[in-house]
Amino acid sequence: MAKDKKTPRPRAETPKGFRDYFGTEVTERAEMLAKIAAVYHRYGFEALESSAVETVEALGKFLPDVDRPNEGVFAWQEADDDGKGDWLALRYDLTAPLARVYAQHRNDLPTPYRRYAMGPVWRNEKPGPGRFRQFYQCDADTVGTASPAADAEICAMLSDCLEEVGIPRGDYVVRVNNRKVLNGVLEAMGVTDAGQAADVLRTIDKFDKVGEAGVRELLGKGRLDASGAYIDGVGLSAAQAEPVLAFLTSKGADVAATLANLRAAIGGSPIGAEGVDELEQIAALLDAQGYGADRIDVDPSVVRGLGYYTGPVFEAELTFEILDDKGRKRQFGSVSGGGRYDDLVKRFTGQSVPATGVSIGVDRLLAALREKGRIGGAAQGPVVVTVMDRDRMADYMQMVADIRNAGIRAEVYLGNPKNFGNQLKYADRRGSPAAVIEGADEKARGVVQVKDLILGAKIAENATLEEWKERPSQFEVPRGELVAKLREILAGEGQG
Amino acid sequence: MAKDKKTPRPRAETPKGFRDYFGTEVTERAEMLAKIAAVYHRYGFEALESSAVETVEALGKFLPDVDRPNEGVFAWQEADDDGKGDWLALRYDLTAPLARVYAQHRNDLPTPYRRYAMGPVWRNEKPGPGRFRQFYQCDADTVGTASPAADAEICAMLSDCLEEVGIPRGDYVVRVNNRKVLNGVLEAMGVTDAGQAADVLRTIDKFDKVGEAGVRELLGKGRLDASGAYIDGVGLSAAQAEPVLAFLTSKGADVAATLANLRAAIGGSPIGAEGVDELEQIAALLDAQGYGADRIDVDPSVVRGLGYYTGPVFEAELTFEILDDKGRKRQFGSVSGGGRYDDLVKRFTGQSVPATGVSIGVDRLLAALREKGRIGGAAQGPVVVTVMDRDRMADYMQMVADIRNAGIRAEVYLGNPKNFGNQLKYADRRGSPAAVIEGADEKARGVVQVKDLILGAKIAENATLEEWKERPSQFEVPRGELVAKLREILAGEGQG
Repeated sequence: MAKDKKTPRPRAETPKGFRDYFGTEVTERAEMLAKIAAVYHRYGFEALESSAVETVEALGKFLPDVDRPNEGVFAWQEADDDGKGDWLALRYDLTAPLARVYAQHRNDLPTPYRRYAMGPVWRNEKPGPGRFRQFYQCDADTVGTASPAADAEICAMLSDCLEEVGIPRGDYVVRVNNRKVLNGVLEAMGVTDAGQAADVLRTIDKFDKVGEAGVRELLGKGRLDASGAYIDGVGLSAAQAEPVLAFLTSKGADVAATLANLRAAIGGSPIGAEGVDELEQIAALLDAQGYGADRIDVDPSVVRGLGYYTGPVFEAELTFEILDDKGRKRQFGSVSGGGRYDDLVKRFTGQSVPATGVSIGVDRLLAALREKGRIGGAAQGPVVVTVMDRDRMADYMQMVADIRNAGIRAEVYLGNPKNFGNQLKYADRRGSPAAVIEGADEKARGVVQVKDLILGAKIAENATLEEWKERPSQFEVPRGELVAKLREILAGEGQG
Repeated sequence: MAKDKKTPRPRAETPKGFRDYFGTEVTERAEMLAKIAAVYHRYGFEALESSAVETVEALGKFLPDVDRPNEGVFAWQEADDDGKGDWLALRYDLTAPLARVYAQHRNDLPTPYRRYAMGPVWRNEKPGPGRFRQFYQCDADTVGTASPAADAEICAMLSDCLEEVGIPRGDYVVRVNNRKVLNGVLEAMGVTDAGQAADVLRTIDKFDKVGEAGVRELLGKGRLDASGAYIDGVGLSAAQAEPVLAFLTSKGADVAATLANLRAAIGGSPIGAEGVDELEQIAALLDAQGYGADRIDVDPSVVRGLGYYTGPVFEAELTFEILDDKGRKRQFGSVSGGGRYDDLVKRFTGQSVPATGVSIGVDRLLAALREKGRIGGAAQGPVVVTVMDRDRMADYMQMVADIRNAGIRAEVYLGNPKNFGNQLKYADRRGSPAAVIEGADEKARGVVQVKDLILGAKIAENATLEEWKERPSQFEVPRGELVAKLREILAGEGQG
């Protein structure tokens, strides 16, 4: 459709579903991740950065019976001599690469291997509001031990991470459930058909949304949903459905009560008893370290991930309230999830390797910290040294070097200096705390003008004309006292 | 080729040319980048993290007259409704995305826009020893000003970065050259044909390798290279070639002498004079800030990038000597390069936008710091709390929590505790400074055993049997003094 034969100009756009991050969006995330990494490190976890690109084979993302990867990943085929090389893809999480790394390097890694990883992952999914196709994950996993102590450690570490980044105690709870207990419940119910078990799992996945009554209907005959459509049920009798509901609603006044309720729900199932024992051990280990139920709790109503994981399942929820889109109060909700998965490495080696881990939702947690006012204050811009005399750039650069050498963020104005108003507008746009001015007159007298832009903005906003005159926001100081004056202005920031 | 119909096990391998980074490989890089980011930030540069995926169109990587991207990038076509969507690709550097970001967001960005970016880039190139298809770049650029003060600032900042990460003054020099001076030389020579100018540029690119005499031959009739092959020359007369050689060898005893030599080499060329003036301004601005020629020098023998950039060109070289593969001494060499490029944004907007910047070679600089012994010491492993009694895991986890709460990296042994020797082997493999042992007897007496593994290793290596007996590396301390004892051991590390 180009009107002439010249190559049309390229569109200056990110691909659909991708975005750029600017300034504090980058640095606040980096600071949060550094704090989390410090906690992971203190727990003995080692950093791992695997390659962003994996073979589709290693990711396990080939479509059944087709030699093409599925559409959830960004993939391409390498050109080899025959034009038909390996299919490569961008990693879609940090767990699949961990399984590959462990299988590849297991002889050089300690057992158990505690590792953490943070970095972008890519999903070839339909983007939506707030849903991007590249986002950060931040994981910690322990590979090579089946001990519930490893699960307990992950929960304690998750709790520490949340407090370290600025979520106060009382504003979060790490909830623990166990897939084995659910398996025990199914066993107690006599549900042995894999298809029916899967139906039950799919149904309890909706527990968060439809509640106890809704799940009861869906396990039985079915349910009229909010849109008026009738959803067919699993077809269990009310008696058969009861143990699952007992499981989901077994949370008691304290951990002992919850565990007693669970033991009742599983009847005589051995796998169920194993699951309850694990929960009991995890709770006891955490209690010994001082993590009470106010921080980490056994809660069988946690259903997210029960289908994926094979043992204990964890979820960190933030319990403080925010206003949703419609102005209604609701809890902030989940910022992290994880659990035990014992079969990921087996794909590569044939040997089952027990593993447990957690993934922190980086963007969700950043949003939470913004809600709590922990981050997202106005960014500290640089002091701007203005240019009054284009020929004296060397003086200004010397001045800005002095300021920086004192540890103060500063820059010289590098745009066209002709219009001085533009220089102050620039300082404003940069969020500068102060602008420095040295014209020929000041130079001759050995002084500089310092404009306190924070104070200036406050005065402009609130003061009467009288006050304006009485409270100058521009100060003349000897050149030798410039750094001291800037320090004073920076120290006063946020006050007044 | 599979012997049966079962899916064969996937290979546990990174794709060819990719690798994983473990432990200190990750953390040392992160620490170095954080130090560089702090310098960039102090200079007023803002962080930018653009998406890793760009449209091929935005990267400018379509092959001429073909609707496919060139082979240097990893690219794939999006599936849209017609099965024919945009071609997407992984970024191959951080400069092309900056041009796209600036064109896309220019109305929201300050002018000039100083930004830094650090992150992986991908090249679809043949991998070789030490050459990977994913690697880190770390860039800083100023977009929107043609002022040589911006170039000077970049050079000063580069010098600060090198010192900040641990390259001592005297061990590096930032060299500055200018493409405009070379253009002036060509003008003075009467080389106006673009093809011939390109031939000259290609030839001086070899100056680093073949030296003055080699370039002289290549500008003239040609040259027999080391392999015995004859390389055709550009075909200039000796007199015509002289100004280019004068340019390349114009480095004088000080900056003033160099500039005088350059002025002689360019004859009356206006563009050449502009180039020499810029170099003079840059040197004067840097001198005013205290950056002498020992740190940042005008050096016309720097030819890398002269073909790509449009004005000043920078290169940071490390001048200390290392031994090469064959045991010969040579300078460490370049770790960073950059310069002024004024046409990148124009592709998108039609308007020329001046820009200048620098890219630090992250892996090269890390290698240099390793050479200088600044990084790469043995990593500090965690204190390992051993498990003597499987049933008392709660005690051990409480103990490890106490140690961690004192800020000491620590973990409890989570492997099978049956064989105690394996636990000590594990501690060894983890690089642990100490192991803690609490059996039933110790528990009953309220004490713990602490094995100083650093001291133990030293004694085992050096001591006679007598000394061995006299200098125990295992200590019994009251449980309440465990943390104090560990602090003592950690403080003594590296001594003795």
